[in-house]
Amino acid sequence: MYRKELKVLDCTIRDGGLINDYQFTEEFVKAVYAAVCDSGVDIIELGKKLVESDEYPRSKFGPWNFSDDELLKRVIGSYKGNNRPQVAVMFDIGRIDLEGLKDKKDSPVDMIRTACYVAQIDKALDVVKRTKDKGYSTSLNIMAVSAAIETELNEALEDVSKTPEVDCLYLVDTYGAFYSEQITYYLDLYKKYVPIEKLGFHGHNNIQLAYANTQQCIIEGVNMLDATINGMGRGAGNCPLELLLGFLQNPKFDVRPIYKVIQEHFVPLRNVMEWGFNDIYGISGLLNQHPRDAMKWRDDKVNKDNCYDFYKECSK
Amino acid sequence: MYRKELKVLDCTIRDGGLINDYQFTEEFVKAVYAAVCDSGVDIIELGKKLVESDEYPRSKFGPWNFSDDELLKRVIGSYKGNNRPQVAVMFDIGRIDLEGLKDKKDSPVDMIRTACYVAQIDKALDVVKRTKDKGYSTSLNIMAVSAAIETELNEALEDVSKTPEVDCLYLVDTYGAFYSEQITYYLDLYKKYVPIEKLGFHGHNNIQLAYANTQQCIIEGVNMLDATINGMGRGAGNCPLELLLGFLQNPKFDVRPIYKVIQEHFVPLRNVMEWGFNDIYGISGLLNQHPRDAMKWRDDKVNKDNCYDFYKECSK
Repeated sequence: MYRKELKVLDCTIRDGGLINDYQFTEEFVKAVYAAVCDSGVDIIELGKKLVESDEYPRSKFGPWNFSDDELLKRVIGSYKGNNRPQVAVMFDIGRIDLEGLKDKKDSPVDMIRTACYVAQIDKALDVVKRTKDKGYSTSLNIMAVSAAIETELNEALEDVSKTPEVDCLYLVDTYGAFYSEQITYYLDLYKKYVPIEKLGFHGHNNIQLAYANTQQCIIEGVNMLDATINGMGRGAGNCPLELLLGFLQNPKFDVRPIYKVIQEHFVPLRNVMEWGFNDIYGISGLLNQHPRDAMKWRDDKVNKDNCYDFYKECSK
Repeated sequence: MYRKELKVLDCTIRDGGLINDYQFTEEFVKAVYAAVCDSGVDIIELGKKLVESDEYPRSKFGPWNFSDDELLKRVIGSYKGNNRPQVAVMFDIGRIDLEGLKDKKDSPVDMIRTACYVAQIDKALDVVKRTKDKGYSTSLNIMAVSAAIETELNEALEDVSKTPEVDCLYLVDTYGAFYSEQITYYLDLYKKYVPIEKLGFHGHNNIQLAYANTQQCIIEGVNMLDATINGMGRGAGNCPLELLLGFLQNPKFDVRPIYKVIQEHFVPLRNVMEWGFNDIYGISGLLNQHPRDAMKWRDDKVNKDNCYDFYKECSK
């Protein structure tokens, strides 16, 4: 599947950081950055760019939750090749400092992705406008739409359609609950408000469909695709970058650096971090539930594989 | 997704047996049988029904490779409920005893599935005819079609079209290499020769698409679907039965007995048997290769996670 306009965004550090409170070592992030550079991937999201607060202290929430410019510059500077992707960071509504945000020309960041729930759309669009005003390319990632009331989602999309500062609008399958026909249904809905050229997709793998749904988006004409190395991401994780690059068969991509960094850095990490599909996330996805209960269940060392008990618990 | 005509075939013991030389305990098979009965699944495949030979001795190849009638009767008799699926077994060309095969009326078996490669089609169709003559319902499972030369596949399908004894023709993704558009392509090809009502699908999960491809088949009108409990099967395994039942939303199915048998019998088994997606099978699927090299690589305790090395090896 080759299409010139297709862009791949690696969000390994940002979505993977949700598993370990963004405590990746700088060495690990540099290895991921170098692999993504060498693979020809278009954009890399290096964590979130939030501000500290009493309830959100840096001591607890690791460096990649705050992704300071100096930290980002060290990562970017550590790579000596020529193939540089754009750098993105994510904003969470309510935990950001828009006043203190530098203009893009003075920042290592190229793109700011604003994540919000449907109910936060007005605040999120204000953030998008202000990041656009500072020169950044922008995306709006409306989360958890598989559980949104459609009249409210329509209103939110109507608002998005009136905000030209949104460069890219993401369909986000936070619960990992969609299958292909639902992807098509929601894309058709989004297309009523935003041209297909501006749509992106971010999947989760709760029912083993993150990669398949990403392919469905490609078939439907979506050109901005999120993926993570080894599928590492919250809960069941995301669309595996290596499978996506293998599928795309675009000569600008090279999957080998991704398999190299998996072998050298992700395989050892699996001993201390868990991600990817299992029965518990499967049930969570089938039942279209927020993954938080499944993640909590997996934290229970004794019962974590007791899928029948979890199913009964979820069906109460 | 509800469609009255849809039938689900559980082939856990048959495809799973490819991992452990069919050495499942009778207790385990009885637990699987009871769970499948209680779940409302239509057909269960309880191994292969081959004959012993010098090169294929019973001492090495376990009981579920030979699935004697007495053994099957003990399994079937151990279940006390009412919900009985049909019983299928698989035939491999060249390792069967057609003369010794009882008539269906004297056998615990209802369905005989004949597996073959494209080059074996004539022999396979002869076997299908003779099993049909003895009163069994039949299927023909043409393996490895993702690597078949299409002119040869066309000739084989032409032969199938002239053999009304084939009750069900399976599209089989042995290499786990297909994605949705290819599923549609091959189904369109098969439909030129055999009506859609007679088609089935058997997927493998090398690139995490067994479930997605099964859904694609449902969308395209296929009514006979293979799946295995927990996706257990050769290499990367198959479409997980529990996800498929969760998707189908057919009131005749109940997914809870499947999660119960997973919790009680499959979770412990994972400590001694390996199945399911990993990087090595992903590469094998992306490159459309027979899984044998990937399985061999996984047997190497030291290098089994060295995906970059495997990729290089496969790309030589």
